[in-house]
Amino acid sequence: MMKVGFIGLGQMGAGMAANLIKAGHQLRIYNRTPGRAAGLVAQGAGIAAGAADACLGAGAVITMLADDAAVEGVVFGEGGVIGGLGAGAVHVSMSTISVALSQRLAAAHAGAGQRFVAAPVFGRPDAAAAAKLFIVAAGAPDAVAVCSPLFEALGQKHFVIGEQPQAANLVKLSGNFLLASAIEALGEAVALIGKAGVDRRQYLDILTSTLFNAPVYKTYGALIVEEKFEPAGFAAPLGQKDIRLTLAAAENLGVPMPLASLLHDRFLALIAQGGGALDWSAIAGLAARDSGQRG
Amino acid sequence: MMKVGFIGLGQMGAGMAANLIKAGHQLRIYNRTPGRAAGLVAQGAGIAAGAADACLGAGAVITMLADDAAVEGVVFGEGGVIGGLGAGAVHVSMSTISVALSQRLAAAHAGAGQRFVAAPVFGRPDAAAAAKLFIVAAGAPDAVAVCSPLFEALGQKHFVIGEQPQAANLVKLSGNFLLASAIEALGEAVALIGKAGVDRRQYLDILTSTLFNAPVYKTYGALIVEEKFEPAGFAAPLGQKDIRLTLAAAENLGVPMPLASLLHDRFLALIAQGGGALDWSAIAGLAARDSGQRG
Amino acid sequence: MMKVGFIGLGQMGAGMAANLIKAGHQLRIYNRTPGRAAGLVAQGAGIAAGAADACLGAGAVITMLADDAAVEGVVFGEGGVIGGLGAGAVHVSMSTISVALSQRLAAAHAGAGQRFVAAPVFGRPDAAAAAKLFIVAAGAPDAVAVCSPLFEALGQKHFVIGEQPQAANLVKLSGNFLLASAIEALGEAVALIGKAGVDRRQYLDILTSTLFNAPVYKTYGALIVEEKFEPAGFAAPLGQKDIRLTLAAAENLGVPMPLASLLHDRFLALIAQGGGALDWSAIAGLAARDSGQRG
Amino acid sequence: MMKVGFIGLGQMGAGMAANLIKAGHQLRIYNRTPGRAAGLVAQGAGIAAGAADACLGAGAVITMLADDAAVEGVVFGEGGVIGGLGAGAVHVSMSTISVALSQRLAAAHAGAGQRFVAAPVFGRPDAAAAAKLFIVAAGAPDAVAVCSPLFEALGQKHFVIGEQPQAANLVKLSGNFLLASAIEALGEAVALIGKAGVDRRQYLDILTSTLFNAPVYKTYGALIVEEKFEPAGFAAPLGQKDIRLTLAAAENLGVPMPLASLLHDRFLALIAQGGGALDWSAIAGLAARDSGQRG
Repeated sequence: MMKVGFIGLGQMGAGMAANLIKAGHQLRIYNRTPGRAAGLVAQGAGIAAGAADACLGAGAVITMLADDAAVEGVVFGEGGVIGGLGAGAVHVSMSTISVALSQRLAAAHAGAGQRFVAAPVFGRPDAAAAAKLFIVAAGAPDAVAVCSPLFEALGQKHFVIGEQPQAANLVKLSGNFLLASAIEALGEAVALIGKAGVDRRQYLDILTSTLFNAPVYKTYGALIVEEKFEPAGFAAPLGQKDIRLTLAAAENLGVPMPLASLLHDRFLALIAQGGGALDWSAIAGLAARDSGQRG
Repeated sequence: MMKVGFIGLGQMGAGMAANLIKAGHQLRIYNRTPGRAAGLVAQGAGIAAGAADACLGAGAVITMLADDAAVEGVVFGEGGVIGGLGAGAVHVSMSTISVALSQRLAAAHAGAGQRFVAAPVFGRPDAAAAAKLFIVAAGAPDAVAVCSPLFEALGQKHFVIGEQPQAANLVKLSGNFLLASAIEALGEAVALIGKAGVDRRQYLDILTSTLFNAPVYKTYGALIVEEKFEPAGFAAPLGQKDIRLTLAAAENLGVPMPLASLLHDRFLALIAQGGGALDWSAIAGLAARDSGQRG
Repeated sequence: MMKVGFIGLGQMGAGMAANLIKAGHQLRIYNRTPGRAAGLVAQGAGIAAGAADACLGAGAVITMLADDAAVEGVVFGEGGVIGGLGAGAVHVSMSTISVALSQRLAAAHAGAGQRFVAAPVFGRPDAAAAAKLFIVAAGAPDAVAVCSPLFEALGQKHFVIGEQPQAANLVKLSGNFLLASAIEALGEAVALIGKAGVDRRQYLDILTSTLFNAPVYKTYGALIVEEKFEPAGFAAPLGQKDIRLTLAAAENLGVPMPLASLLHDRFLALIAQGGGALDWSAIAGLAARDSGQRG
Repeated sequence: MMKVGFIGLGQMGAGMAANLIKAGHQLRIYNRTPGRAAGLVAQGAGIAAGAADACLGAGAVITMLADDAAVEGVVFGEGGVIGGLGAGAVHVSMSTISVALSQRLAAAHAGAGQRFVAAPVFGRPDAAAAAKLFIVAAGAPDAVAVCSPLFEALGQKHFVIGEQPQAANLVKLSGNFLLASAIEALGEAVALIGKAGVDRRQYLDILTSTLFNAPVYKTYGALIVEEKFEPAGFAAPLGQKDIRLTLAAAENLGVPMPLASLLHDRFLALIAQGGGALDWSAIAGLAARDSGQRG
């Protein structure tokens, strides 16, 4: 069992922290706003006064936050993770962050005699609560080994994709790009057959009982044919952020991705027209709108 | 058991005809070139001297041909299906043809007192030979009912998508559009993580054992990470044709499909640069090439 | 002076025919609907009963029609130009038609012992009336030479671009593609600076008094900043048609044109959303709409 | 006459500084590397030891640098412009920088009791040397008024586009976007007509003597038909940067710009394939390459 700092108790983090406690780990938790901590304290977690405090005596500290800025906010500067984490301890970044920040974190922790593992996850809040996440990890083998029992408590499976932490972040971003691509493709296909008068639900049934028998087509296909984009399971601005980070990584690597560019423009249009509170699959509705099928 | 004319004995048609014979139907077969007929004759098929002759006394005639031009060639004019088919008999078009031709065929057969069903298929030659096709049919209910035993002999499942035959053609085209979209997305993603030094095979394993656990990602993902685009299972010019027909239908319906436009340009580039003999999944290699990863 | 048949008395053709009469040529005119002929008859033109009749005794017949279908309608079949035109006489096609039809016309006229010149024009109806058109001609040198005095009467300048008539049609289509590209670019730029609060008119003044001091930026820029898309000088469906013909020629030649594909999708969206009666420059308004600047 | 600091003596800045001296202004010049200063000293300029030193006693300091990083490097921190500039003096930023940095500079100078004017320029080094630049300025009216005599010494014309400095930066970026759009359009058009066998030079002559009679089509059209992309007048990475800054501004403002996205991907492909030393108009060669017209 391990002493673990846990920073970030949002929809994802709260369920993950609970699973670590359930697996017997000893947690010090910290969230910018105190809201969700109470339940975890009842389960045995200790409350930290800040990010550095959460690292006190911990073998590993996990960050599960919304974006680059939030991670930078708890890691760097006065009272941050770098200041609080002991020599040789591991920072496990499970947030979806940029490749560039991941590289910067790896360097900063190395400079402070600490270790860094990137381990972003695939899965929604319900998967986080049920310990059904998929985890993609990268980092120095000994550091990843330290994290293994944590990953086992958090997910149904974890993968190690290399020794450069940022590889895991890139894989995560590319996965969200693939999801958004399938959403866009479905959006265009449904706009096409829908305007021709074909029954949308029956169409989706055919697809998903034949070649497209996969969760992504079933889940998003259903949202699209029902036009049920609220409440957001994963909000449009988060999708936009991930495509932006994908394009930023692609630009740095020198890889043109025209389909990612198309998705970027779709998210911009969706949000500019008032769709910022919708699920990211609402980009699929733009094809129908462009074809004159809605206001 | 039914008397059936069967026109088009290519890679797909030969296997399909054999399955109909096996199921007890009495076939008169016709192919522009005599090549593949011998085996079927040995199994009991009669040889027709032409398209009209194949329709002689048949309750249904099936056409399974490469494109619009081939279908027009056997249906219209002297010695064509329309001239040979009896009153009330059904022409079952199983080729991937344009929405516009499907509408024209429906009208022409109606004018001749015949019936028309569009029933394009999903599946490669091995699925055709194994009677594992998925069949999407549309047409007047009584005409579709006539075809039911034939569909059962040819595929693992069939779907009826409406009474307008062209609806089935549109669904088929949109399915190939969705497949090509997934190929493009995979091509861009693999170019991205590959240029970053991530192991392509391991990457694909992660994808297909988590969110992308579907035949399309497994089959095409493997071709893409191995860059194994020969021999062609489905040649690039056929993919190009299907995207062109999708865009033609979309233009007639007034549905902008920017992702289909991107695919159109990809196929053009692939073929213009000498890739006309490759599998259609070779469009996935263009992202890698654009990123400077190949000659 | 020459005996000239003139077919097509629309907004463009009526002015052109008048200029030919003014230059001393002897015209036999034909229009599907009689409407505009009266004024020309008053100026000395003879009325033809049909297309073939307009060719009677003519050294050249000019067609100036809306699209491929209209040209096919007057050229082929009973009572068409091919039936009426004398041996060695020249058909001068000045309409904006497809490369494929131009090739077909060249072959058909050659087969009938006649000559064919493609000579599409740049310019709006006011330029046609003022004999200020630019004419791009292609065809056999002797046939083009026959047309020279006609071109002088019709335009401010003409260019000979080769011996294959379809080259002239391709140049014309590519010119309209370049115009539409400038419109799209302006639309996006104006949406950008406009949403930032920069004065649109002042912005346009800066552009057109510096690097973009050209008619296309002045003319279309003014329409775009004023959002004055009615009445249509050149209606959106005509723009759509020209981009479609450009893409068709590009597909046959094996040339991917992603910007043309973008324009294709813009025209589809504009018309699908009710903009079919607007000027083609209204595609520039889509960028503003996508950015949430209008309903 | 004014005391002026001048920072950045590259291809553009050296000529501009000389013109200010010629007009009678008293310059203190600074460049990171001493190279180009000698000639200006001979004309009467004083040499500054650093950025702050260049501001000593100056009514205005001009920065003319390659990119955001270079401007940040001389403005902020120890020995920077903000530390050296007197109260009420004006920093005139003439570099092509991001909208975001322009806003940050305005705030920082305001905080230090200084004034800030953004005044980017249109024109190449020869125009800078000949005092033929076009200058687009924005800032508080009194601060802009201070700069007027400087602008008169530097350019053939200047425009004031508003009181928010970043408006001028956005106009400059959008202008480069319009130029790159025209280059892309020409590249596609030339690939099209070229593959059809039409003479490229004659084609360009027709365009530029009719509707496209503007410097941008003449200058870039000539480079494109000659495929003369070396030496670079404006290198591809600078073009890429400007499109990236345009897209960044557009993203912040919520304006989807699909044509800018296409240009972004073109620059990435060009540079990834080894074209980083070419002129930015080399993106026009990609359409030809995609069509199989070159290796």
